[in-house]
Parts: sequence; structure tokens; C-alpha cells
Amino acid sequence: MESQKVSKSYQAFPMNGGDGQQSYARNSMYQRRGTDITKNIIRETILEKLDLETLPQNSSDTFRIADLGCSVGPNTFFTVQNIIDSVDLKYQSQEYNKDSVEFQVFFNDHAGNDFNTLLKSLPEDKQYFAAAVPGSFHGRLFPESSIHVFNSSYTLHWLSKVPKEIVDKNSRAYNKGKIYFTSEDEEVAEAYSAQFERDLESFLNSRVLELVPGGIMILIILCVPPNSLNRFEASVNIIGDVLVEMAKKGLISEELVDSFNIPIYVPTSEEVKKLIKENGNFKIEKSELLFRLIDNDTYQIDAHSSSMHLRAAFEGFFKENFEQDTVDNVFVQFEKKLASESNFLADPSSKELGELFIMKRK
Amino acid sequence: MESQKVSKSYQAFPMNGGDGQQSYARNSMYQRRGTDITKNIIRETILEKLDLETLPQNSSDTFRIADLGCSVGPNTFFTVQNIIDSVDLKYQSQEYNKDSVEFQVFFNDHAGNDFNTLLKSLPEDKQYFAAAVPGSFHGRLFPESSIHVFNSSYTLHWLSKVPKEIVDKNSRAYNKGKIYFTSEDEEVAEAYSAQFERDLESFLNSRVLELVPGGIMILIILCVPPNSLNRFEASVNIIGDVLVEMAKKGLISEELVDSFNIPIYVPTSEEVKKLIKENGNFKIEKSELLFRLIDNDTYQIDAHSSSMHLRAAFEGFFKENFEQDTVDNVFVQFEKKLASESNFLADPSSKELGELFIMKRK
Repeated sequence: MESQKVSKSYQAFPMNGGDGQQSYARNSMYQRRGTDITKNIIRETILEKLDLETLPQNSSDTFRIADLGCSVGPNTFFTVQNIIDSVDLKYQSQEYNKDSVEFQVFFNDHAGNDFNTLLKSLPEDKQYFAAAVPGSFHGRLFPESSIHVFNSSYTLHWLSKVPKEIVDKNSRAYNKGKIYFTSEDEEVAEAYSAQFERDLESFLNSRVLELVPGGIMILIILCVPPNSLNRFEASVNIIGDVLVEMAKKGLISEELVDSFNIPIYVPTSEEVKKLIKENGNFKIEKSELLFRLIDNDTYQIDAHSSSMHLRAAFEGFFKENFEQDTVDNVFVQFEKKLASESNFLADPSSKELGELFIMKRK
Repeated sequence: MESQKVSKSYQAFPMNGGDGQQSYARNSMYQRRGTDITKNIIRETILEKLDLETLPQNSSDTFRIADLGCSVGPNTFFTVQNIIDSVDLKYQSQEYNKDSVEFQVFFNDHAGNDFNTLLKSLPEDKQYFAAAVPGSFHGRLFPESSIHVFNSSYTLHWLSKVPKEIVDKNSRAYNKGKIYFTSEDEEVAEAYSAQFERDLESFLNSRVLELVPGGIMILIILCVPPNSLNRFEASVNIIGDVLVEMAKKGLISEELVDSFNIPIYVPTSEEVKKLIKENGNFKIEKSELLFRLIDNDTYQIDAHSSSMHLRAAFEGFFKENFEQDTVDNVFVQFEKKLASESNFLADPSSKELGELFIMKRK
């Protein structure tokens, strides 16, 4: 048996733990909204596409679900419940006795995730056996053919590490004075895109072994339409500007800013489809773009909530590189800058979107 | 499917988390020594008693092990590794290709356990897929017929709750001015023993459903020879004396001491055997007394280490009832009292022992 040793090259970027004001649990409304939108699509697809012969059919069988990159909840609980309800419906539609089937749910995230908070907040009336699984989803996490439904929502944009070329002073992709890239920084963009390609490849190669034949993998991948304004890229580059200004004022070292880069890549929908096809292990049963227009009528967005959202997602990563005072200052300055660019916040072309992929083993 | 709702009547008593000076991780040498002693017995029994036909025999099968009441490590990792090595040997002895079998290990403890510390300290070279399972082992934790080997070492003396009679002022078992009992307190002792009986019953009824046919359950249960000096009982009653003295000095309220009781029952070996027999779900394949004579030649025992050991195990429970200052004071006073009773520490008749039971489903 192959060793399950976690490679040192995997970096972990946990969401903010606990349930305080700056926690992920209280600042993940974007993700929640994505969950609401996709609830029905997932339900329909499970009813339509889950293979009957893969469903456990007697009481000694277990139906296993895994949520990869679950963070600390509560979104993961809603998603998992929707999957269970959908599978229940599938059983009913086929007139199986669903009461004889037991569900086991695996909540996965990096070992640095705040599993204590997650496990203490499990729904009291949950109808499943729960387990937490630590480790990077870029490697193996589960025994062979053991999971019936995989879910992973808005997680695959996190790279397993910052591409090494962009912190190498001798590389053409060296990303001096920036913490991210725009489409104009060709070499840097290419290094990021190559890292995303390697990471998605190792993710898919692990999952194809772990999924039961006929099982379903549901991925929502953050992506952008080509050549459109990328809100994430724009926001992160504003944080980059804040850091560069702080370095100029001598508040932090310039070298630290040069070596600091955000390990995220937001691909285009076409890019993801091409990579899945090239990998060859999975067949896309359904894909659907989930536009999330920034629309003040349906979803209040302002500089403060936007900054809190990014802070909840990124603070852990920032804290690995900067002092707490610096991190606090960065997000205060970021919110100010964001507020002064209200056009950006209101711009109807500033889209965030995800693409939902429902896949099966080939 | 039955709801897995955790009953409010289960109380959780987590070991001290983290890896600081007063952590369970650094003060569980007693338990570790128990592990060393029993290592060979477990290995031999697995080789002898594990049914070949229950072993997964191709790569899509998984061998599942669960450690119940795992705390934060590292003892749980040694125990689990010993079980895996033993199962490996069993495969080899039968000339199966063990490389094709994957192991999955479930680490269980109460939801209040410090799973973050546990999951961060998983051995880097572990040869298994790890998962943490929160919840009381007095109820269901796993799907039906899903576990091949259960292990639980020195955990079943923890009751699911303090017996309600002993905190009821109108009961004959009301335990005023004490936090535990001696063999002379008949009604109180009986209330404790009845609670242990109910708890062991619900433990066994849950496990029989979860164990695969032919699987093995390894329990080490803390117990004492009848009528011998019970070190645990003696130590806890010394802590009780400390609390009563503090109440007399007005440092804590008398009422609080009256309502405070230790939810632990240390049965005799005969008592456990009788209960397992009456339950009727399991057949004892092997049982062995593990005497742990307090012997200064082989194991250094002094007031300080004895006090640190009890503190690591009980501080969490004390902190639910008393202020941190009070808890600190209690253990300082306890250590002093213990040091002044050096006869007790050196008494060769002051035995601690466990009984190892290896059981299979009937």
C-alpha cells in the first residue's frame, strides 16, 4: 500500500476559524448564495444521473458522501443535506426502502482547518454518521471506490502552492512588487495557469480512484468569462497596492512583499473543460455557468462586506507571512480603497461566476 | 433511518487538549505503559482470532479500524499502528497480497475533544486514511457492519453522566460533602454501578451493529480486584477532601461541592464479565488481567507526576464546574496532600489494573 504521507509541498490555507466577527462561518454569504442557486440543479442531476446499481440496497450497505474543502460550516451542512435529500428522493422514486440505508459523510479540509468548530456545530438532528478527514485534496484522502458522491464548492481555485517560478528572482516570471497578476503579466499568468493545470490533474487522478463506479462528482469551480473584469483579480491587486504602499512607507519590508503571492488561480470555464477532457478520467454529465452579477437589488454589496469576505478567506494565509498588526492594517486600508472605488463595486460588468460540473467516471 | 441526534443526557469530559505542560498528550504515561504491555497480546490474538473470510481481499475493499475515546494522541497512534502491523502479519501468514489492502482509521472522541491537535499530529508516514469521528461511544457512531477492529483503551470507566440519584437531595444516594464514594457508601456505590451497567449495555448494543461479522473488539477496561485498595478511589477522595476544606474556608460554596461528583466507575473484573455475558451480544475470546503494580524500580511514581496525571485527565471536567483559580488551587493542594501520604504512594498493595477483553460478535 502506498504511503499516505502528506507531501511538504502542499501548503494549507485555512479559512478563519471560530465563529467570531471575522470568521469564515460568519462571512461566507457569497458561498452560501452559490449553494442556494445550485441546490435545485444538484437535486435534478442526482435524480437523473446517479446510477441505481451503485446505490446501497440493503441495510448493511452505506452511502458515503464527501465534501472537499468544507471549511468550518455552515454551508457544508446545507450542501450535504441537499445531497442526502436528493438521494432519498432517488430511492423513493425507485420504490426502494430508503429507511434501510445509512449515510456517512466525510468533511474534508487541510489539517490546519478548525475542525473543532466544525465538529461542535454539526446539526443536532443530522441523519448521518459524520467524520472529519484532514489533508490536501490534491492527494489521496479515501480508500478506493469508497465514495458515492463527491462535492467541492468554490475550492479548486486554491492552488496547492504558489508557483515556484514567480518567487524565483532569476525567472522571467518573477513577480516583483505584486502579489498577483493581471492578464498583461504573461509569464506570471502562465506560471499560475500551469500550476492550476498540475493541481487539477492530481485532484482528478485521486478522485477517480476513490469514487465508486456510477458515483457522481459535483464541482463548483470559481471561474471568469475571458476578457471580462475579474472582481477577484481586481480586489487582490488592490490589496497588492496597499502592501506596496506600506512597503514604501517602511512599514513592512519590500522583500517580503516581493516574496508574497496569492496561491489562487481563477480559470476560464473553457480552460477547465479542456483540462478535464485532457485528463480523460471523467465524463462531464452536466455543466452550467452560475453567473453572480453584483446586483444591489438582490444582494447588498459594499466595501465593508466585500473586505470582510476577503479577510475571512485570506487572513490565515496573510498571517503566515505578516504580523497581526500588519494584517489588520492591510484590511483597513483595503476597505478604504475599495470604498473610494465605488464605480468598481457598482459596475454591472464586474461579474463573479462559478461553473457547476457534474461528472462521472468514464 | 434512525436519527443520529446526540442525546443531551450525554456529558462530554474531554482530556486536556494541546501539547502544553498540563496536556493529556504529555501526561498519559500510565496509558502508554498499558499500551506497551498489551501490544504483544493484541498481536497474538489478531493472528489467532481474526476471521480470514472477513478480511478485505481485493484492492477495492477497505479494512476499517476505530479507536474509541482516542483523546489527542499519541497513544492512539501507537495502538492503531500495532493493530495494522498485526493485520498485515495475518495477511502475510495467509499469503495474501497485503499491498492491495487499504486501511482506514477512525479516531473517535466526544465533540469537545481537541481534534485540531489530534489531526495536526497524525504520523507523517502513516499508512492509512485517517478520519475523526465526534460523539459519545454510548450511542451509534458508524454505519452497520462497517468496522473490522474496534479498540478502546481505559475509557469505559467514564460514565455517560453522573448518576442522577446522587445529586438528588431527596434520594438516599444523595452524596453530600463528597465527590466520589468508598465501598462503605452503599447507596451511592449502587447508583454508580447501575449507571455503569446501563452505559456498558448501550456501548455493547451499538458496537454489535457496527462490527463486521468476524471482526474483533479490543477493550481495556480499568478495573480493581475486589476489596483491594483502589488507587483511583483513594486519589479522588483526597481531591474531595481538598474541596471540602476549601468550602469550609469559604473559598468555594458548599452547595457546589455537594453537587459536584466524578462521573467515573471502576468496576471489578468479575462485574464486567457478568455484564458482557448478560448483554449476550459478544463472546469473550480472550481476557487477561493487566496488573500495574506501583513499583518504583520499573516505573517512577511520585506525588507530582501522580497529580499531573490526574489533572490532565480531569481538568476539563473540573473547569466545567469551577473557576480556573479554584482548579489550580485544588491541584496544588492535592499534590501537597499526596506527598504527605507517601505511604500510600509506596504501598505495594495499591494496585491499578486493567482487564483486556478481546471479543467477537456471537
